[in-house]
Amino acid sequence: MTPTLIDIRAAAQRIKPYAHRTPVMTNESLNQQVSAQVFLKCENLQKVGAFKFRGACNAVYSLTAEEAARGVCTHSSGNHAAALALAARMRGIPAYIVMPNNAPSVKKNAVAGYGGLITFCEPTLAARENALERISLDTGANVVHPYNDEHVITGQGTAALELLEDVPDLDVIIAPVGGGGLLSGTAIAATELKKEIRVIAGEPEMADDAFRSVIAGSIIPSNNPKTIADGLLTSLGTLTFPIIQDRVEQIITVSEMGIIASMKFIWERAKIIIEPSSAVAIGVLWEKKIDLSGLKIGVILSGGNVDLEKLPWHK
Amino acid sequence: MTPTLIDIRAAAQRIKPYAHRTPVMTNESLNQQVSAQVFLKCENLQKVGAFKFRGACNAVYSLTAEEAARGVCTHSSGNHAAALALAARMRGIPAYIVMPNNAPSVKKNAVAGYGGLITFCEPTLAARENALERISLDTGANVVHPYNDEHVITGQGTAALELLEDVPDLDVIIAPVGGGGLLSGTAIAATELKKEIRVIAGEPEMADDAFRSVIAGSIIPSNNPKTIADGLLTSLGTLTFPIIQDRVEQIITVSEMGIIASMKFIWERAKIIIEPSSAVAIGVLWEKKIDLSGLKIGVILSGGNVDLEKLPWHK
Repeated sequence: MTPTLIDIRAAAQRIKPYAHRTPVMTNESLNQQVSAQVFLKCENLQKVGAFKFRGACNAVYSLTAEEAARGVCTHSSGNHAAALALAARMRGIPAYIVMPNNAPSVKKNAVAGYGGLITFCEPTLAARENALERISLDTGANVVHPYNDEHVITGQGTAALELLEDVPDLDVIIAPVGGGGLLSGTAIAATELKKEIRVIAGEPEMADDAFRSVIAGSIIPSNNPKTIADGLLTSLGTLTFPIIQDRVEQIITVSEMGIIASMKFIWERAKIIIEPSSAVAIGVLWEKKIDLSGLKIGVILSGGNVDLEKLPWHK
Repeated sequence: MTPTLIDIRAAAQRIKPYAHRTPVMTNESLNQQVSAQVFLKCENLQKVGAFKFRGACNAVYSLTAEEAARGVCTHSSGNHAAALALAARMRGIPAYIVMPNNAPSVKKNAVAGYGGLITFCEPTLAARENALERISLDTGANVVHPYNDEHVITGQGTAALELLEDVPDLDVIIAPVGGGGLLSGTAIAATELKKEIRVIAGEPEMADDAFRSVIAGSIIPSNNPKTIADGLLTSLGTLTFPIIQDRVEQIITVSEMGIIASMKFIWERAKIIIEPSSAVAIGVLWEKKIDLSGLKIGVILSGGNVDLEKLPWHK
């Protein structure tokens, strides 16, 4: 069953005691730069610094007491892992996290800091899945997939729900796409709340598997992509892909230059820290491949976890 | 006449149509780190990225139409200049700005971007004052001093007024001190609203002229100080010093290491950009020279204008 607006509303109630209702910011310099009225949904200010907390929290609190007692487990390049670790700690259950050994140190530290029990593995999908399966079999922990999970999708959709409560007359809503959890949740919430709204995704040119999947009509896996947007390396899932096919108007690819320029502009002008994956959504406006001028545009800033020692504009 | 709470309330009304009411943020990681409940008044999210807009705006809109027509002028290392330029542009009058030729490029660009008419000079107080006097004589423009000006002081005090409206039960309020405009305005607002509140200032160890002035009982000018907190290089003024003597409990000096560590922590955990001068106020809590544990503490984050090409934690 595809998740519905009812599920997203239920998720919003479920996570309300635990997640922040993040602010919606506006910035005049940005509006001038992109010739539109932009409303930034600041999931970089969410717990663990990313929207991922919404989905993880919804998944953890959807478990029965008996299920929950065995804990949760996942593999993730970072933000989902931190989110699941914190949500599990809040519920008082263990979180077993499989992480690639090349994940940014800021993300490793976050997961450990939230009490996640980390197993490192090689940075390949096969290695991650093997490690996860072993842990799940050993402990009986519930696998919470980073995006191909109904509770995760509906949890992520609560950001768009809040954004449209705050700014009901948006013409367009833009989210970045990696595995599609945020995008599919956003698309359900937005199009159910407002039939005529346009849902647009931003994807790195260098990791354009979602763009190609939509054109092909079937999931094309990403093939070892290299982009600064390290949260968007994954391929679409069997749950997220059909929702995106149905409800997303188009996927716009953004160059690495556009991602970096957008990121730096937001840091300099809006004075908030966003990670490259967030900047991909801004990049859709920045590069102006499509004309959205004059419109009211909601942008989901997905997260703010950046290794400050390694900024892209430094030599 | 020393400014009063009535003046600050009048300033708040005067600047209301032009300035942001900035948010007050909290952050659990910070609370844990400093063992207190901290409320961050985000003047980094103010127009021009600094509290300075409040004072400049109050000064510009306090002018009669006849005075205003001749424009305004000042010398400033950056934030006050940008603030005055924007306030003047809003009122449709010229702003003549004297800037040291070694000011960070992000600040130069901001002033130019807001339409300020810049004259560069050598980075000495004498050179700045000479250049300013010449401009003032030539144009008849009203000098708006960066801090030793009643309208500026009362304008700056509006940040604390808002903070205490939002969080009335603060035990302590901390602001950084350079020339003392923000600190004196903050001290008046805070102690008039709440007699028992403790007003504490943070000052760089490497630019500790205010600390030494208070001990000496007379203004000791800063002597070519070198600190990363480039907004706090100036000496106290004849208006700000007596207010600080009367109403500020103590001035705490903060090491360069403490400033940088505080700044990085706020970037990493609170996901907002603050400049080193703001981090000095956090540094008071960070270095724990005095025991403020368990208290409710308001911190004025003075600004967020940073040259992203030159971050202190980069080699």
